[in-house]
Amino acid sequence: MKKALLALAIAALPAAAFAQQDDTLFLRRLADEVLENSGAYENLRYLTKKIGGRLAGSPQMVQAEQWGLKAMQAAGPQKAYMQECMVPHWVRGGKDQAWVTAGKTRKQLDVVALGNTIGSAKPITAEVVAIANFEELEAKKDQLKGKIVFYTYPFNRKMVRTFQAYGDASKYRREGPTRAAQYGAVAAIVRSMSHGTNNHPHTGSTTYNEAYAKIPALAIGLQDADLLDSLARKGKANVTVHTKGYFLPDTIGHNVIGELRGSQYPDQIITLGGHLDSWDNCEGAHDDGTGCVQTIEVLRAFKALGYQPKRTIRFVLFANEENGARGGAKYAEEAKAKGEKHVLALESDAGGFTPRGFGFTVGADKWNKIQSWAPLLAPYGGGELAQGGGGTDIAPLNRLMGTPLAGLVPDSQRYFDLHHARNDVFEAVNKRELDLGALNMAALVYLVDKYGL
Amino acid sequence: MKKALLALAIAALPAAAFAQQDDTLFLRRLADEVLENSGAYENLRYLTKKIGGRLAGSPQMVQAEQWGLKAMQAAGPQKAYMQECMVPHWVRGGKDQAWVTAGKTRKQLDVVALGNTIGSAKPITAEVVAIANFEELEAKKDQLKGKIVFYTYPFNRKMVRTFQAYGDASKYRREGPTRAAQYGAVAAIVRSMSHGTNNHPHTGSTTYNEAYAKIPALAIGLQDADLLDSLARKGKANVTVHTKGYFLPDTIGHNVIGELRGSQYPDQIITLGGHLDSWDNCEGAHDDGTGCVQTIEVLRAFKALGYQPKRTIRFVLFANEENGARGGAKYAEEAKAKGEKHVLALESDAGGFTPRGFGFTVGADKWNKIQSWAPLLAPYGGGELAQGGGGTDIAPLNRLMGTPLAGLVPDSQRYFDLHHARNDVFEAVNKRELDLGALNMAALVYLVDKYGL
Repeated sequence: MKKALLALAIAALPAAAFAQQDDTLFLRRLADEVLENSGAYENLRYLTKKIGGRLAGSPQMVQAEQWGLKAMQAAGPQKAYMQECMVPHWVRGGKDQAWVTAGKTRKQLDVVALGNTIGSAKPITAEVVAIANFEELEAKKDQLKGKIVFYTYPFNRKMVRTFQAYGDASKYRREGPTRAAQYGAVAAIVRSMSHGTNNHPHTGSTTYNEAYAKIPALAIGLQDADLLDSLARKGKANVTVHTKGYFLPDTIGHNVIGELRGSQYPDQIITLGGHLDSWDNCEGAHDDGTGCVQTIEVLRAFKALGYQPKRTIRFVLFANEENGARGGAKYAEEAKAKGEKHVLALESDAGGFTPRGFGFTVGADKWNKIQSWAPLLAPYGGGELAQGGGGTDIAPLNRLMGTPLAGLVPDSQRYFDLHHARNDVFEAVNKRELDLGALNMAALVYLVDKYGL
Repeated sequence: MKKALLALAIAALPAAAFAQQDDTLFLRRLADEVLENSGAYENLRYLTKKIGGRLAGSPQMVQAEQWGLKAMQAAGPQKAYMQECMVPHWVRGGKDQAWVTAGKTRKQLDVVALGNTIGSAKPITAEVVAIANFEELEAKKDQLKGKIVFYTYPFNRKMVRTFQAYGDASKYRREGPTRAAQYGAVAAIVRSMSHGTNNHPHTGSTTYNEAYAKIPALAIGLQDADLLDSLARKGKANVTVHTKGYFLPDTIGHNVIGELRGSQYPDQIITLGGHLDSWDNCEGAHDDGTGCVQTIEVLRAFKALGYQPKRTIRFVLFANEENGARGGAKYAEEAKAKGEKHVLALESDAGGFTPRGFGFTVGADKWNKIQSWAPLLAPYGGGELAQGGGGTDIAPLNRLMGTPLAGLVPDSQRYFDLHHARNDVFEAVNKRELDLGALNMAALVYLVDKYGL
């Protein structure tokens, strides 16, 4: 039996070698097509410069959906459509403000309210208490009533991969305000989740625990954070904050979907996408305009090469990733309700920087096959394949249906310089880096389409 | 004997394992030091913003040398000194100009004279002939007398590693003008060596063949290159060029050198460096301010950790890489004259972007040892080790003395967007990416210092 297997393996070798050569040639054609003719950069220019920030429920969300459907159609799928979902509708309501008064210092601070937070109705003035971490919060819990809690927890520069630092620090944005409210704080300020060299504040979602009061919560730029930290620890410092956020009733949003129908296994679906919404305080270029235009570019390139997939490929611009993730939830719920079979879902939502590889959430049985593709992706920069990864919008597919997930992993050094901040603009995106990301996504989708998973 | 070797190998394992663990721990300390306390970014700010472009012979060259010596001393070497060398002294002489007239079109073109070119004394007007490549030049050699030759050869987008495209295209900048002069052309214009999305022209050296006339030679921005190409191929187009360059007599420049003396093998020298000069039409940030401040940062970090090298380490800011490479030549000549033993020379001159690895020019006997270090460098991004590489300034050490060479290999996607162009400025450098480069250089130097080569 062993001998028979060996003979089989040897007999199979030339075929495998030919297949590999076919793949090498096709991926080179794909690379040439994307590197020469990509439409991703010009699509991104329109989305960021003509539409701009596009938070769920905003007029720009509607414009972005209409643009997305047209751009998707222009790339030539068999069908393109909108998938309706209800989305939250948070409104910033005006310019968030804060200033500090300490001794003779009186200074305006560069702040932005966190997403989903309430407005302060009128300016709130209180003494600020600098809190290094949750341990210090607990230790000082009896001193926080009527105060403004200021979380000074820094983004850890020592972590080479910056998403690790984000995972480490972002709990202060997510849970910090509500935990401060639990002890009677009247507002919360969070040091921005960044190690950038500027003073831009970085927004992002926070979550209220309904058991406690909802208090205004803001992010502060790093330079002002350093100043406020030093003032608060030196002596009494008062801070005034004024936020204007509020919720309107949930409204209708859409996932924008393009589809190429599979020729051999039309019922097996490969999904790739990014999210169409963004925070309102920026152009949402790297987060996640790039993921959207890369997704459309994969479709354009496949069509330009006349590529006919074996499996059905869905190109999805997801709604409402930033403050609700309702688009991704809706997509998975419908897929499950219809009994769809999903082979892989791939997301690009870590910025449009030079790709390094992909992270996978898959069973051990699929891992060997995936790893065998690394040499094919390496010439285009995407050969670092690792376990663990995916994306917020595709995670529900895995939770509900066990769908294998992949996330594009670009270079991460610049992402948190601009993530959720006013400098996440078109000009921060490099055309080549953007296109290489699209190219590697196309390459992975091609391999999964050809060989299954 | 085989058994004995095996026993020896097993006995040696724990020691090797301990050594590896020591290395892992030291490199982590090095990373923490650089990522938390690097002075590279602030040094670069001074060099680019306070001094700016610093071509050999210019007043800014002198300022940069003085700054370099002070910055080197501040990093704490046992000695820091200048090494004198004669450098060419080319002067641009004023703003280079060109405009095109074709039918009703009359348009100013965004151009910059190539380095080392002559001035045109007064504006030269002639018909422009678009030439795709040297084959077309030869085919049309009888039609070039009195004309302006315009090389339209494009930077090849299909080459994923951009230095390959530079190697492919830059012969038109280097040899193109003099080969056009051979056939009677009165001036030459070269499409910029870039695939950027802007219209900035990119300068760089050209070389005259003394057998032919010296003609003005300029680079043109990509958008204007496309326009000029279409005008010249549609019908008769005249171009007027006016350049003002000239040479003054050679003058005195300096390599700036810092040194840490080896404790065990002081006669074995490891050199690392970048080049201090830059073109005059930019701030010389990525080319090669970053290599200089990374070099100084390696020294600062070693001193901050109290690292005492076994071998002598030289930190060198080389003179005149851009239009003569006299600094590197002088360094190697003196090393040879003194009979110095050089273990390795490492250069950072490919931009201050996220490091990917190193390229080595070494004998096969050393390659296994080098490859064994990849897992130690990988956590910091520098684990891609390849054969081939070095740098212009260290190449003479290899030519004269056979010294092994290494070049830092950063991500190459953005480099030729700004190389030798007016957007090579401080703001184009990311602090984290810069520091990671310094860190990987320090790590490699540490390993070579500890284990030799």
